[in-house]
Amino acid sequence: MSELKVGVLGAKGKVGQVVCEAVDAADDMVLVAAVDQDDDIDALVTSGAEAVVDFTHPDVVMDNLEFCIDHGIHAVVGTTGFDEGRLDQLRTWLGNSPRTGVLVAPNFSIGAILMMRFATEAARFFESVEIVELHHPTKADAPSGTARRTAEMIAAARREAGLGAPPDATSTGLEGARGAEVEGIHIHGLRIRGLVAHQEVVLGGIGETLTIRHDSLDRASFTPGVLLGLRRIAQTPGLTVGLEPFLDLD
Amino acid sequence: MSELKVGVLGAKGKVGQVVCEAVDAADDMVLVAAVDQDDDIDALVTSGAEAVVDFTHPDVVMDNLEFCIDHGIHAVVGTTGFDEGRLDQLRTWLGNSPRTGVLVAPNFSIGAILMMRFATEAARFFESVEIVELHHPTKADAPSGTARRTAEMIAAARREAGLGAPPDATSTGLEGARGAEVEGIHIHGLRIRGLVAHQEVVLGGIGETLTIRHDSLDRASFTPGVLLGLRRIAQTPGLTVGLEPFLDLD
Amino acid sequence: MSELKVGVLGAKGKVGQVVCEAVDAADDMVLVAAVDQDDDIDALVTSGAEAVVDFTHPDVVMDNLEFCIDHGIHAVVGTTGFDEGRLDQLRTWLGNSPRTGVLVAPNFSIGAILMMRFATEAARFFESVEIVELHHPTKADAPSGTARRTAEMIAAARREAGLGAPPDATSTGLEGARGAEVEGIHIHGLRIRGLVAHQEVVLGGIGETLTIRHDSLDRASFTPGVLLGLRRIAQTPGLTVGLEPFLDLD
Amino acid sequence: MSELKVGVLGAKGKVGQVVCEAVDAADDMVLVAAVDQDDDIDALVTSGAEAVVDFTHPDVVMDNLEFCIDHGIHAVVGTTGFDEGRLDQLRTWLGNSPRTGVLVAPNFSIGAILMMRFATEAARFFESVEIVELHHPTKADAPSGTARRTAEMIAAARREAGLGAPPDATSTGLEGARGAEVEGIHIHGLRIRGLVAHQEVVLGGIGETLTIRHDSLDRASFTPGVLLGLRRIAQTPGLTVGLEPFLDLD
Repeated sequence: MSELKVGVLGAKGKVGQVVCEAVDAADDMVLVAAVDQDDDIDALVTSGAEAVVDFTHPDVVMDNLEFCIDHGIHAVVGTTGFDEGRLDQLRTWLGNSPRTGVLVAPNFSIGAILMMRFATEAARFFESVEIVELHHPTKADAPSGTARRTAEMIAAARREAGLGAPPDATSTGLEGARGAEVEGIHIHGLRIRGLVAHQEVVLGGIGETLTIRHDSLDRASFTPGVLLGLRRIAQTPGLTVGLEPFLDLD
Repeated sequence: MSELKVGVLGAKGKVGQVVCEAVDAADDMVLVAAVDQDDDIDALVTSGAEAVVDFTHPDVVMDNLEFCIDHGIHAVVGTTGFDEGRLDQLRTWLGNSPRTGVLVAPNFSIGAILMMRFATEAARFFESVEIVELHHPTKADAPSGTARRTAEMIAAARREAGLGAPPDATSTGLEGARGAEVEGIHIHGLRIRGLVAHQEVVLGGIGETLTIRHDSLDRASFTPGVLLGLRRIAQTPGLTVGLEPFLDLD
Repeated sequence: MSELKVGVLGAKGKVGQVVCEAVDAADDMVLVAAVDQDDDIDALVTSGAEAVVDFTHPDVVMDNLEFCIDHGIHAVVGTTGFDEGRLDQLRTWLGNSPRTGVLVAPNFSIGAILMMRFATEAARFFESVEIVELHHPTKADAPSGTARRTAEMIAAARREAGLGAPPDATSTGLEGARGAEVEGIHIHGLRIRGLVAHQEVVLGGIGETLTIRHDSLDRASFTPGVLLGLRRIAQTPGLTVGLEPFLDLD
Repeated sequence: MSELKVGVLGAKGKVGQVVCEAVDAADDMVLVAAVDQDDDIDALVTSGAEAVVDFTHPDVVMDNLEFCIDHGIHAVVGTTGFDEGRLDQLRTWLGNSPRTGVLVAPNFSIGAILMMRFATEAARFFESVEIVELHHPTKADAPSGTARRTAEMIAAARREAGLGAPPDATSTGLEGARGAEVEGIHIHGLRIRGLVAHQEVVLGGIGETLTIRHDSLDRASFTPGVLLGLRRIAQTPGLTVGLEPFLDLD
């Protein structure tokens, strides 16, 4: 089997460097172009890149992707800032390049995706569920975006199953003690030096609890998801949003 | 909606008493017969029981089930000791009573079933996986049956995904330090006063781990599974093995 | 060694029954009087009780203790509602009965006491610390009294060590996401069906965290502390507040 | 207050580099010499170093320390390979340099030291105790040295308290399921990709458990202990073994 020729955009950024190393280390792909902001993007074409990874900046990512799609180069994109308008623009461009695939994902950590998925699947079986997310203390937002998204998914699953609000007899106490609420699901955010990014979903019913916890101990944790995206995007024309479809869960 | 009329066999046993209380407390069912070893099983018929729960003894469960099937009474069975021979016997009897359903399950804890299921689903995404089970110190077997079964399910999922043995550079140390192995999956059993029944599956890949933990804090944790079984067995003619089919997982 | 003769006040209450069983089961003591509200408290004297356990009610506990102190019977008291006024009253009574000992403790769980103690001892070594308490959903107050007390103890230890507020860059988010604050220490309260009473203190510094967790899985968890109190109170004249002095920690 | 002048031996090694950065970043010290194997150790003297950190190699550490002690330079030593003979040699040299202090410690992680300390302190209060250590899968030994040492400390505390073996009714099962035993204490070693170095001590009594867990998520976790050692060693003439005395625990 021939190796996939991969280009990396934003190759000198923190994330880009880790991506370059991961592609280098993979048996089934080869890094043919490492492009940063001062480099000519044509290097993707001259190097014969079949697929690129883009962890750049919201200001430049659309130009990058227009170029890639024009040249029939598949793309795996972790850059932030995609709204429906941008996704529609990508769909339009891809309409003119029907064999090209683009994956845009907010999260490449397979562990985090499975944690959200399992918590959602389990939600309808348990009366109670709450979310605890733990991060380094330099994080600006609380709760985390992943925790909010998890709460939304769980709330939807509970509604669909006809479950009401989780039981809670709290009648006295201190403000904030029961955390934030997103669609009725309580979220608690800890900020602790030494931690990276962690989330735990605790579900409980009569006499038992089920706890699903994801720990990201190193920023390299997103690389297996990026490599998976690269391996699949060439066979997946059009726009894919989120890595989950590539996980082939039932 | 009319209430389901439920009989309980082994009603004075530890488990049977908890089942009786749970049926009593459920809105959609009514306890019509509580039968123990000194009682006449005909009470099931005279009381109009539509479904029974059997947590009795391997010596008597087959007689109980023959009686139930003969009388078209559905059964939810948690008694142990079922091998393929016994299951085949049930299938034969059920062949003559085509509208009757029997559920035989080794485990009625929904949390434990989901834990095993999620661990198995996640297995192919992670290089490493090990199992830790923690129980009260009066347990006779180590590892637990649930841990063994989980290991078998994970090992099968890894084989199917083409994964080899998890990485392990251990070259020196003490016997037993790496636990027991079931089909190449390491299991560690703790016995701690104060605990009931707990299991944790730890999966790990580059820079991240996913941990799925089930805690049974009270023996009543099996009752939601028994009630679920009762609610579904009347609509499920024939033999069902294991509660999982009733969970409607994708 | 002769057995300690023990009386139990509130013997028919939930807690009192468990205390009676625990005293019965202990090798070095014997239950000589089980007194409830309709019984005559003189049974303590006629039975020769050397020490009593009182888990009764704030309305009656002071009368009980006056009786015990008058008769030179030592007391181990878990009844709530003690303020400084009541403690001073006990000290006065005990001044007239110089060989009698009374222990009043808000918490007899040795595990909980050690958790608070260790968290406090560790506090000055870590930049960050937060508290997560998890309880059954029928609890009325949030955060728990134990969590508040732990926060106060940690805050005092940090002040003494000259530590300022833990780092926290949160600048945007949802109300309550960062929990309640007690003297600058964040507390998060979860309410989950299936749980009993649990608390975790997470401390963190550069590259590492230390987590101290107490799980109470069964209300019987307070009995070893009560027995320890009984064994020590006869040798400890006067008033002792809190079980910790009897733990002989350095 | 004047800054402490610090030299680092093994300055280009992985650990040494992290030490150099930590000294640089500390307000109360200044890095005056970064010496590696090809550099002249006299740089310590010419730079006016008051204290050194040595993370080098068993083959050279004794020469390094003889030089430092001869020149009245205090030393904080994390190099491995110290036996009683080497420690005695250090004591002899220090006898001739009565104002110089040397700290030799196997572990500079304050979290790990506290975890061992608290587990040992708690040991006499709980019937059951077991150790779970979790590390990256490239570790050669199982169980870890820290786990063995913890087991020895716990076993000694239990013996002193007159406790026998923890309860364990295991009569059937698979080899290794109950882990390794060190002085009667069970240790379980997990090897999981994505983990760094983690240890959990689980203690249990009637109805409750106490869990003390240390997570090292980044190798930089040892630097606060090294800095603490530097701050204290100038005021601590002679040989100190282990960081614990500098933690001022009660």
